[in-house]
Amino acid sequence: MNLDDARTAAASLDAADELAHVRDRFDIPEGILYFDGNSLGPLTHASRAAIERTVGFEWRERLIRSWNEDWLDMPLRIGNAIAPLIGAAPGSVICTDNTSINLHKALMAAVAMRPGRTEIVVDINNFPTDIYIAQSVADQCGLTLVAVKASQIPSAVNENTAVVTATHVDYRSAHILHADEITAAAHAAGALVVWDLAHSAGAVPVDLAGLDADFAVGCGYKYLNGGPGAPAFIHVAPRILADSTQPLHGWWAHAEPFAFETGFRPAEGIKRFLTGTATVLSMKSLEAALTVFEGVTIDQIRAKSVSLTSLFIDVAEEVLVPLGFSIGSPVDHDHRGSHVALGFERGKALVDAMAEKGIIADFRPPNLMRFGFSALYNTHSDAVKLATILAEHASGR
Amino acid sequence: MNLDDARTAAASLDAADELAHVRDRFDIPEGILYFDGNSLGPLTHASRAAIERTVGFEWRERLIRSWNEDWLDMPLRIGNAIAPLIGAAPGSVICTDNTSINLHKALMAAVAMRPGRTEIVVDINNFPTDIYIAQSVADQCGLTLVAVKASQIPSAVNENTAVVTATHVDYRSAHILHADEITAAAHAAGALVVWDLAHSAGAVPVDLAGLDADFAVGCGYKYLNGGPGAPAFIHVAPRILADSTQPLHGWWAHAEPFAFETGFRPAEGIKRFLTGTATVLSMKSLEAALTVFEGVTIDQIRAKSVSLTSLFIDVAEEVLVPLGFSIGSPVDHDHRGSHVALGFERGKALVDAMAEKGIIADFRPPNLMRFGFSALYNTHSDAVKLATILAEHASGR
Repeated sequence: MNLDDARTAAASLDAADELAHVRDRFDIPEGILYFDGNSLGPLTHASRAAIERTVGFEWRERLIRSWNEDWLDMPLRIGNAIAPLIGAAPGSVICTDNTSINLHKALMAAVAMRPGRTEIVVDINNFPTDIYIAQSVADQCGLTLVAVKASQIPSAVNENTAVVTATHVDYRSAHILHADEITAAAHAAGALVVWDLAHSAGAVPVDLAGLDADFAVGCGYKYLNGGPGAPAFIHVAPRILADSTQPLHGWWAHAEPFAFETGFRPAEGIKRFLTGTATVLSMKSLEAALTVFEGVTIDQIRAKSVSLTSLFIDVAEEVLVPLGFSIGSPVDHDHRGSHVALGFERGKALVDAMAEKGIIADFRPPNLMRFGFSALYNTHSDAVKLATILAEHASGR
Repeated sequence: MNLDDARTAAASLDAADELAHVRDRFDIPEGILYFDGNSLGPLTHASRAAIERTVGFEWRERLIRSWNEDWLDMPLRIGNAIAPLIGAAPGSVICTDNTSINLHKALMAAVAMRPGRTEIVVDINNFPTDIYIAQSVADQCGLTLVAVKASQIPSAVNENTAVVTATHVDYRSAHILHADEITAAAHAAGALVVWDLAHSAGAVPVDLAGLDADFAVGCGYKYLNGGPGAPAFIHVAPRILADSTQPLHGWWAHAEPFAFETGFRPAEGIKRFLTGTATVLSMKSLEAALTVFEGVTIDQIRAKSVSLTSLFIDVAEEVLVPLGFSIGSPVDHDHRGSHVALGFERGKALVDAMAEKGIIADFRPPNLMRFGFSALYNTHSDAVKLATILAEHASGR
């Protein structure tokens, strides 16, 4: 699609957008075009207000009393707010720590539930931290890490596999893995599965209960807009929760933290996947940000996200590819998450130059520009503006 | 000392207090008497301003660009601000995760450095989470946990001991352990030591370099006033840093996180003890709170803290003990940290009743009331008021 046609199409798509009003829940500065919600979601009015109240009232005035009045229940409360976005049952998700640590806990729990099995299978294109964590768990437990392409996971799992881990949406290409096939193959081999939902939660539908997934982890600061370094989450299927245990036995994972018992007794439910004291300020920001999902279904979000990325790719194919860009994401929207990657030789310099002008995207080596589209605040007109600016920069105008 | 004499003494001690001006750096509400800085430090003006700037400028306006502009260096910057408070070398402390997780990392690192040794020795009166974590590390690594009284640690360590862990100041009694004797005994046996400085950092001097301690961990939300659930810190002695490794291989611990390499290569220095993405909002609050220590020496803090707790104990002995209180902390100030514990049968009810009136302390089972004294904002007159109120409540006036 050429730029003129795209502008016309965008105007009518935006006019019909039933999520258009959601953008008002964000506090995005005038003049900023933001395409990096896959890396750091922007500020919401709700987060700003929650942080102000947490600092000025809960911390300043109520001081230590706020633990009982509010903060102790917060990790589970946030987990329950995230649960419907990822198809998880209430009480099966909790907000805690960061994604790396949660993945460590999930993998350690999984390995302990499959004694005698000797392998951890990982998508070789997984986000590096996931591979590092999986390798470390394998080393600690005397297992072997088997790293294969996602498409080969079903044939790589067998009676030696303790656990499989992969990220649902690839952090570079936005390729959506076949979660159903991978989960089913792992289960058929008697293995467990840990899904990383970093690039899915809040943007791409996931049905953890329908998948019968065992564990999942994910990130609070991307499409959930929790703020820089917002705490992550972990999900454990209710059917295995009572049998699962993780080794970071901090007092918040104890059945009665304030009984100060000498011996560790894990909490009954998902709280056993907590560690130590929650980072209240960061967690409060995330809790408030989740209110932007009120009255919005994940299917509405997905439909608009597909519409945004499809329009952008249609324009990119006609306008940007001739200028030296390559399409780095699946063209078939069924296999594409909520960002679009474009290969471009001078990609790093271009991302930096655009940032100077308030058009914000990011870059992943060696040559991938990533553009995150959030159905919550991006418009189709934004997508066309982005393509226009890329074309201008690349052609030296 | 009786209450009248104490009031007179307090007035002159407060008049001569060279740290009196530091209280102005805090935003403590009118009418609140706060004796719980050992559990949650109060809000500082600097934290409030830093959080506002982080939300309104760094997150809202600079968005993802703030990582390079500020946030990536923050964990080490904060570590370097904490280092002088605990006698550690620059570059040997980093702010990350919570105390439980940092203790796990330190113990795992220590055990790996002492292959073949079969025991972890822990103070049986340690904070429960420390015991849970130590037990879990022992279980994971096939070691035995040996729990003894702190005074017995020197005789419990031997050629089987891989690592010793204890908390420098007891969370109930405020008893200060003999860190020098314990560290020397462990080292003489060829073992390593992990000190938990939760109730020391910012209140009780610690000389990690002088002790030649191997590892230390500690808390950001007590005497460092970082805010609810502020991130913790970890110290690793420079002489062992290059040989030490921890198993939570998140991408922030990588030598080049943004090279997105498939294999893990630990960062050169203390950054190898990071895990995943830092909780920026919570960490910013801590960083700002540390500015209240500017122009204040830890020796000044200690001198005033001793003066506060000594006055309170002097009054308690004469006025409160006859009313049924017992002194639960060392009377010799050389062995006492910065809080005072009083045993009282109806302690829980009394703490709750006082909180209603804005006099805030805390309670630890079975019968211990804890009163934290911070040299940064508490006054001698506060201490006498506290004793007066306790006497009134206990005598039913």
